[in-house]
Amino acid sequence: MSQKYDPSNPVAAADISTWYAQTDVIVVGFGGAGASAALEAHYGGADVTILEVASGSGGATALAGGQIYMGGGTPIQTACGFEDTVEDMEAYITLAAGANSDKAKIKSYCENSVEHFNWFEQQGVVFNPEFYAGKHTNTPEYQSLAYSGNEKGYLERKVARPAPRAHKAKAYWEDGGSTLMATLTETINNTDIEVLYDSRVLTLVCDGDRIVGVMCKQDGETRAYRARGGVILCCGGFIMNREMIEKYAPRLKDGTPLGSPGDTGTGILMGMGAGGAAINMDEGFISVTWYPSGEFCKGVFVNQQGQRFINEDCYHSRGAHHGLNQSERKVYMVVDSAIYTEPPLYSAADVVEVGETFEELERDAGFAQGTLCNTMKTYNDFAAKGEDPLFHKDPEFLQVIDKPPYALLNFSIDSGIYYPTFTFGGLDTNVDGEVLNGTGNVVPGLYAAGRTTAGLPRTAEGYASGMSIGDATYFGRLAGRAAAKNR
Amino acid sequence: MSQKYDPSNPVAAADISTWYAQTDVIVVGFGGAGASAALEAHYGGADVTILEVASGSGGATALAGGQIYMGGGTPIQTACGFEDTVEDMEAYITLAAGANSDKAKIKSYCENSVEHFNWFEQQGVVFNPEFYAGKHTNTPEYQSLAYSGNEKGYLERKVARPAPRAHKAKAYWEDGGSTLMATLTETINNTDIEVLYDSRVLTLVCDGDRIVGVMCKQDGETRAYRARGGVILCCGGFIMNREMIEKYAPRLKDGTPLGSPGDTGTGILMGMGAGGAAINMDEGFISVTWYPSGEFCKGVFVNQQGQRFINEDCYHSRGAHHGLNQSERKVYMVVDSAIYTEPPLYSAADVVEVGETFEELERDAGFAQGTLCNTMKTYNDFAAKGEDPLFHKDPEFLQVIDKPPYALLNFSIDSGIYYPTFTFGGLDTNVDGEVLNGTGNVVPGLYAAGRTTAGLPRTAEGYASGMSIGDATYFGRLAGRAAAKNR
Repeated sequence: MSQKYDPSNPVAAADISTWYAQTDVIVVGFGGAGASAALEAHYGGADVTILEVASGSGGATALAGGQIYMGGGTPIQTACGFEDTVEDMEAYITLAAGANSDKAKIKSYCENSVEHFNWFEQQGVVFNPEFYAGKHTNTPEYQSLAYSGNEKGYLERKVARPAPRAHKAKAYWEDGGSTLMATLTETINNTDIEVLYDSRVLTLVCDGDRIVGVMCKQDGETRAYRARGGVILCCGGFIMNREMIEKYAPRLKDGTPLGSPGDTGTGILMGMGAGGAAINMDEGFISVTWYPSGEFCKGVFVNQQGQRFINEDCYHSRGAHHGLNQSERKVYMVVDSAIYTEPPLYSAADVVEVGETFEELERDAGFAQGTLCNTMKTYNDFAAKGEDPLFHKDPEFLQVIDKPPYALLNFSIDSGIYYPTFTFGGLDTNVDGEVLNGTGNVVPGLYAAGRTTAGLPRTAEGYASGMSIGDATYFGRLAGRAAAKNR
Repeated sequence: MSQKYDPSNPVAAADISTWYAQTDVIVVGFGGAGASAALEAHYGGADVTILEVASGSGGATALAGGQIYMGGGTPIQTACGFEDTVEDMEAYITLAAGANSDKAKIKSYCENSVEHFNWFEQQGVVFNPEFYAGKHTNTPEYQSLAYSGNEKGYLERKVARPAPRAHKAKAYWEDGGSTLMATLTETINNTDIEVLYDSRVLTLVCDGDRIVGVMCKQDGETRAYRARGGVILCCGGFIMNREMIEKYAPRLKDGTPLGSPGDTGTGILMGMGAGGAAINMDEGFISVTWYPSGEFCKGVFVNQQGQRFINEDCYHSRGAHHGLNQSERKVYMVVDSAIYTEPPLYSAADVVEVGETFEELERDAGFAQGTLCNTMKTYNDFAAKGEDPLFHKDPEFLQVIDKPPYALLNFSIDSGIYYPTFTFGGLDTNVDGEVLNGTGNVVPGLYAAGRTTAGLPRTAEGYASGMSIGDATYFGRLAGRAAAKNR
């Protein structure tokens, strides 16, 4: 077939002369969301086919550090001596999701978080009841539990008791995601779920407004696959599609795309073409990693005006979010010789100026007279008392900065340092993973999960590591269950 | 017909038993965009029907102050002694539109701006060659020319020579929009363009992926209208649809909706239902009007940390944009008795604290010790020299603040003062007004203009008064022209 398919334009079933194959549930994409959807549809009694564009499973989940945001009293939390409640978890995630939070999804996610943990164990995923207490981006060895967001933040403590909720499958350092996906893949391989790799879904097939299948490129041929129960789009986000980033999320465009090569937005486009609504499209994870080491949380971020703008012990994507709001996106950090014993692990931020005094640093770096000096004097006066009335940094990271020489590090996005980014926008879905159109009505036969949807994580300002995989796997399961029932 | 229509779900032409009427071009909505589209389709030789939900013409344009952003050397600019070029206008609007600018639209808009001015005159719109020089939100009497954005800003001057570009039809004060619409309506009434009021378009009609008409509620009946050339959606934005604001533009939700009752997003939903992509949906105009009088541009905005964050002589929506980025969205202004002789015209901002010294103001208002005082000392030291190295306020508004008592005014969005807001997001269209799907392909037969589309204005940070009506009327014309050719 030489016809050129447009993912944004579904094919009419009436134009299909021959269905190449039929099944109950088609899952498009074999990352964390797709694996979970396929398993749960299978457990629901459905015949399932996974169509994956790559030559193996994994998706972005396998490339990630692999933390999964779970709480409300998981066995690992309990074993490590932490108490947590559904209410605290719900309040925290609601605050984190910000103005655009999906309250129904958050409620379901939190109420069933312990069950979701148990489900992972049933699939063979192993967790290690060890807590890591340091300030890092992931647990640096085999520990399975850590704080991963702003749980201990000033505003967060007002609404929810802090608890560590990032659960990593037992694996060394950043191997959590690949370990998780290896386990889920093995579990799937032990079922009769059909897994077809090297299979590029080109567009959906509709019968009126109902989705009944997909067109798929395999072995050099374009084949029509029919789904009796539904099609579940688990195709990832759109960070690799530069045109979509320009149109929908221009704020992210100068970051370094973080994801799998399949994060081309095709699933979102297919959903939109079927009448589905894409929401939260402007938002995404964007980060700059000034820590580890946690010593750098003792530094002072300033903008072009020599003013502070954030508590420097916040989660890294919150720092980047606020940094990008500063004039001309300029972000610097003031450190002294007590803090700077070696460069930050990930961001070898340039030292743009050094000085024996703040006056010298201010003048030589070109800050307006009095600005940086006032900022540092105020900071130090309060730090000496263990206070940060401006941004409420935790006393653990409050330390008078008075060991010259002082250095000014450049953390601006145009400095060339690493600003990893991926998207939070996608198809609007209900709790069961059904795709919704702009009016809020269901697009019959169409489901989605993972970063093809707008899920739990909605803002860089509120993100915590583990929310994406947590969202993808939990709502992937619900979508699989719903599609199986629909057959 | 008792069937319930969903704007997000078009009706198939095959299900239409009888077309109530047929024409070449259907224009949905009779505001600035619809009027311009209808006229130009008519001049292109098409039979045109306007379907308007209200009982009269006007839309949001008639409710607006009526400024139209035009330049590149219009007769009014020339008569008032200003030089302007297409290049300066294009550079300015490109900077204003920010990361998400539509370069093709901006280029067409600027290159044809003088022609667009002439077109208005040909339709009977009268302009008055008088320039208003004050700091205001519109020309306060019959003047037709004013600066209306950040043309004289620090960053803007680096890319484009400033020129006033807001053109208001000759009318008193805020009557510019109603005068404009009255004139265009009269012009339309002198043609054979069919205008049908009290006509609510419910959803589109499609034949495959082509749009061929609309379902319209009239006289208690639902009627199918067929369009041979195309349907042009000119139905306004979505600021009156609270569910859409929550989903797409939560940042705007605490503002006061500014628009016509028809700004329910129906046009955007219909376009999305036909496979069109909605972009820039999170952005919108949001404003707080600390001026007029321009005296308040001499005040000092501070956030919760007692720090400045903006040049106080910037355009009002830029001030609101940055204000909303401050901690807990708190925004205050420090004034002295020289500035505060009477309250701001629009925003009777509460005086939350007064003091004979900045120390007293700082302490009694609860700012951390040294913060507000440092800010004011730095500001005054530089203002005495006519400088603002932090935010580059124009020397015209730089004045040492040293006439106690000092007052702290609350301009925060949660203070209850007026934060008017409307949406900038909508259907993605090409220069000719054809609606594009997510892949960038045309949805055949479907056109859109005005705030149903994402047009020239893309951010509150860069907005200037007149960009919306300018965009709506100019691209309305191009859509009308294209649809007429398509018949």
